[in-house]
Amino acid sequence: MADPRAVEALKTALRRLPGVGPKSAQRMAFHLLRRDRDGARQIGAAIARALSDINHCARCNNFCEASKCAICASPKRDATQLCIVETPADLQAIEQAGVYQGMYFVLMGHLSPLDDIGPSQLGIDRLLELTKTDAVAEIILATNLTVEGQATADFIIDLMQPSGIRVTRLARGMPMGGELEYMDSGTLNQAFSDRREV
Amino acid sequence: MADPRAVEALKTALRRLPGVGPKSAQRMAFHLLRRDRDGARQIGAAIARALSDINHCARCNNFCEASKCAICASPKRDATQLCIVETPADLQAIEQAGVYQGMYFVLMGHLSPLDDIGPSQLGIDRLLELTKTDAVAEIILATNLTVEGQATADFIIDLMQPSGIRVTRLARGMPMGGELEYMDSGTLNQAFSDRREV
Repeated sequence: MADPRAVEALKTALRRLPGVGPKSAQRMAFHLLRRDRDGARQIGAAIARALSDINHCARCNNFCEASKCAICASPKRDATQLCIVETPADLQAIEQAGVYQGMYFVLMGHLSPLDDIGPSQLGIDRLLELTKTDAVAEIILATNLTVEGQATADFIIDLMQPSGIRVTRLARGMPMGGELEYMDSGTLNQAFSDRREV
Repeated sequence: MADPRAVEALKTALRRLPGVGPKSAQRMAFHLLRRDRDGARQIGAAIARALSDINHCARCNNFCEASKCAICASPKRDATQLCIVETPADLQAIEQAGVYQGMYFVLMGHLSPLDDIGPSQLGIDRLLELTKTDAVAEIILATNLTVEGQATADFIIDLMQPSGIRVTRLARGMPMGGELEYMDSGTLNQAFSDRREV
C-alpha cells in the first residue's frame, strides 16, 4: 500500500534535486509534511521567486536579478582582466578569497558532449564577442582541474590564440595544508613539473 | 560579492531540507535554476499540493488524503492486530515485505525530550483510545532498535500493561545476509541471548 498520491508526487518531485535518491526524498517529504510545513512553504515561495526573478547577467552570464550583475556594474573592477569560471559557486569562492579584482565570465558548466553541452550552451560565442569589444588584456582560466574542466580550458585556449590576448591559467600543484602522503600521483606529478626556484 | 538575493533566498530555503548543508543547497539551487527549471516548477507544485491535500488518518495517524487511509478503510485487514511504527516509511517497508495483514498505528516520530517530542506529540492518547474501543488482541511493537525507538517501545509497554492486551515486539538478532565478522557486539549479544532451538 503506497503513500497517498500527493506524498508520492512530492517524493518524485524532490528526486529531481541533484544527489537525492528515493530514500532521501522519502525522508525529506516526511520532514516537510510532519515537522516543517513552514519550511515547505518557504521552499515553494523561494523557488517561485527565483524562477521569476533570476536571469543571467548580459555581460558575464552569472545569475542576476537586474540586467547586469553587481560585479559587472561596478566601476571598481579591473576590466583588463577576465577570469573564466564554470559556475557561480566557483566565482563566489574566488570572491571570498579576495584575491582578484578583475571581471568574470561564467560558463555555467563545462563541455560535456554526452550531456549535449557544447560551446554554444556555454555561451562561448558571447565570450568571444566580449574579448573583442572590451578592453580585455588577460584571460585567466579558472575552470576545475577535472577532465571536463581541462578540456573546456583547452578549447578556450585554442579559440583565443588568434586574438593575441594573453591567456593564463591558475597554478597547479599541492593544495595548502596538503600532505604528500595523501596526495594523488597526478597532483604530485604536476607539483614536480611546475616546481619553482626559491 | 554574494549571489543575487533570490538565489540566496532559495539556498536558505533548501537548507531546511534534512541533510542539506550550505554546499548541497548551493549545488541544488544552481541545478534548479540552470539545468532544470521544469524540475523546480514540479517541486513547487508538489509542495503546494501536498501541503493542501495531506492530512493524517483519523484512525492510524498515517499521511492520508481522505479522512481514513486505505489500510484503515480496507475490510480485508485483521483488526485484532495493531502494529506500532515510527514513520510512514517504516509502515511501507512492512507492507512491501508482505508479511503482515493487520492494522497500524503510526507515531510519526519517537519520544525525544530534547526535541520536545513527548507522548502527546506521538498521539499516544489516541493510541490508548484505539486499543480500548477496537477489537485489538495484540499490539506488535515495530519501533526502530535505536535508543529512542526502544525508549518509545518501553513507554508503550508500560502503558499497555493494565489493559491486559498481548504486547509483542519484533525479533532482534542477526539480519539476513549478515556476516558475524561485521556484526556489532550489541547485535551479537542479542542474537546469543535470544537464540532458538532448532
